[in-house]
Amino acid sequence: MSKDAFAVSVRLPVLWGDMDALGHVNNVCYLRWFEQARIAYFERIGLVSEGPSAIGPILATTTCDFLAPVTYPAEVVVGTSVERTGRTSFVMRYGVVLATAPDILVAKGSAVVVTVDYASGGKVPLTEALRAAIDALEGR
Amino acid sequence: MSKDAFAVSVRLPVLWGDMDALGHVNNVCYLRWFEQARIAYFERIGLVSEGPSAIGPILATTTCDFLAPVTYPAEVVVGTSVERTGRTSFVMRYGVVLATAPDILVAKGSAVVVTVDYASGGKVPLTEALRAAIDALEGR
Amino acid sequence: MSKDAFAVSVRLPVLWGDMDALGHVNNVCYLRWFEQARIAYFERIGLVSEGPSAIGPILATTTCDFLAPVTYPAEVVVGTSVERTGRTSFVMRYGVVLATAPDILVAKGSAVVVTVDYASGGKVPLTEALRAAIDALEGR
Amino acid sequence: MSKDAFAVSVRLPVLWGDMDALGHVNNVCYLRWFEQARIAYFERIGLVSEGPSAIGPILATTTCDFLAPVTYPAEVVVGTSVERTGRTSFVMRYGVVLATAPDILVAKGSAVVVTVDYASGGKVPLTEALRAAIDALEGR
Repeated sequence: MSKDAFAVSVRLPVLWGDMDALGHVNNVCYLRWFEQARIAYFERIGLVSEGPSAIGPILATTTCDFLAPVTYPAEVVVGTSVERTGRTSFVMRYGVVLATAPDILVAKGSAVVVTVDYASGGKVPLTEALRAAIDALEGR
Repeated sequence: MSKDAFAVSVRLPVLWGDMDALGHVNNVCYLRWFEQARIAYFERIGLVSEGPSAIGPILATTTCDFLAPVTYPAEVVVGTSVERTGRTSFVMRYGVVLATAPDILVAKGSAVVVTVDYASGGKVPLTEALRAAIDALEGR
Repeated sequence: MSKDAFAVSVRLPVLWGDMDALGHVNNVCYLRWFEQARIAYFERIGLVSEGPSAIGPILATTTCDFLAPVTYPAEVVVGTSVERTGRTSFVMRYGVVLATAPDILVAKGSAVVVTVDYASGGKVPLTEALRAAIDALEGR
Repeated sequence: MSKDAFAVSVRLPVLWGDMDALGHVNNVCYLRWFEQARIAYFERIGLVSEGPSAIGPILATTTCDFLAPVTYPAEVVVGTSVERTGRTSFVMRYGVVLATAPDILVAKGSAVVVTVDYASGGKVPLTEALRAAIDALEGR
């Protein structure tokens, strides 16, 4: 994962307890890593859920490709970028590498995030401020 | 989800602790539900990992579409079927409904499962016995 | 665990993913089980947290004794009772058995639960209604 | 938590997904933190479980006192020490602080760890090498 591949990244320790009975990190942990990278991205663009009455992001779709097993002990770096924006949603992609091998993806994935009114559950358009923040962060 | 839509299903309680700070079941829990349905399917076709030296399944790809939020208290029914088989892999699809509303999908997803030699990590072809067990379970 | 040992019990499936790299259910899962039994108890006595502004329970202390390993597949029954009440708190105890061996505890534990004003964080006395509900449920 | 209070400590990020529906870190996460500190301690004294046939540690008892709520974002430092050793077991204590407030415990706890033969499940005495490693690490 080149330093420029993702606009935002988080560095996370693998915990011993992340491993399952097969002796490597369980698949659901990757989704937790993705979530944390996504939240870090949201913080950078000011898209933070402020209680049940706010407008904010919901996860509509997620995918993950598991490319190589990960075992404790390790640290992972999880990168994420917004690949494209729609009217009421945007597409993120993720990449995960070991901190000790930053050029080899151990997993990659994607997400569709929709902006909704938490009270009604209805989709709301991305604001201009949000689009501008994404473009600035992505250097577009 | 019609009773015939999936070859195998598991019924699982939603736990209070499955909810996150937004007050509904966190996205990673759905992947845990998918995993449990997948394992139940594997048990039905005799594809059970027997320690680190065995031949067994690994998860190569997973996807999830979140269609409606789930909140505690609830019970979910998670169905799964093998949609098609390849030489060294097969594709599963999943559907999740509330036990109280069995016709309304709250999530759906898919997985690509590869059969590997756990010791070497290399892909191995699906055995004829495994193909036959899948076909029998799917009624094909 | 005799049928009369605990006022409230919940029956929960062990998931394959609850196991850790040692091949048995990881210790933190027991605390999740305790939590679910505790929540079920709270529901029975009307002690349900209704958002961040309510008065409700917080967990002050928890203990767990691991008496025998649990492995997937299994179902556990988690019982809980309020052992005694104080001015602003009460003590719960827990017992966990396999559904197939209801007389053999695989774990036991305890909790101290304090009732607080969620907004201020300050302790508040147990109401008379709450004491009465506990006594009724415990048959005291 | 003074720097000298615990022989081993780990620094861990709080994840957004660690929070539950009440908006603070769920109680089971503290047990995951304790586990990771315990594993780090085990590594320092050479007490590492090497598969199902080895001699190694099992957790017999755990306790946790929750002293103050933790919310994302935060980093916690989890310290642990062996307080005393018995014939086939030892007692650990834990302390958790926020990285930004290292003198204020947000949680503390303890564990009883027993050394067993994983194959038979039977307790085995602590070896002299293990006692020496503990004493060296604790500066006793």
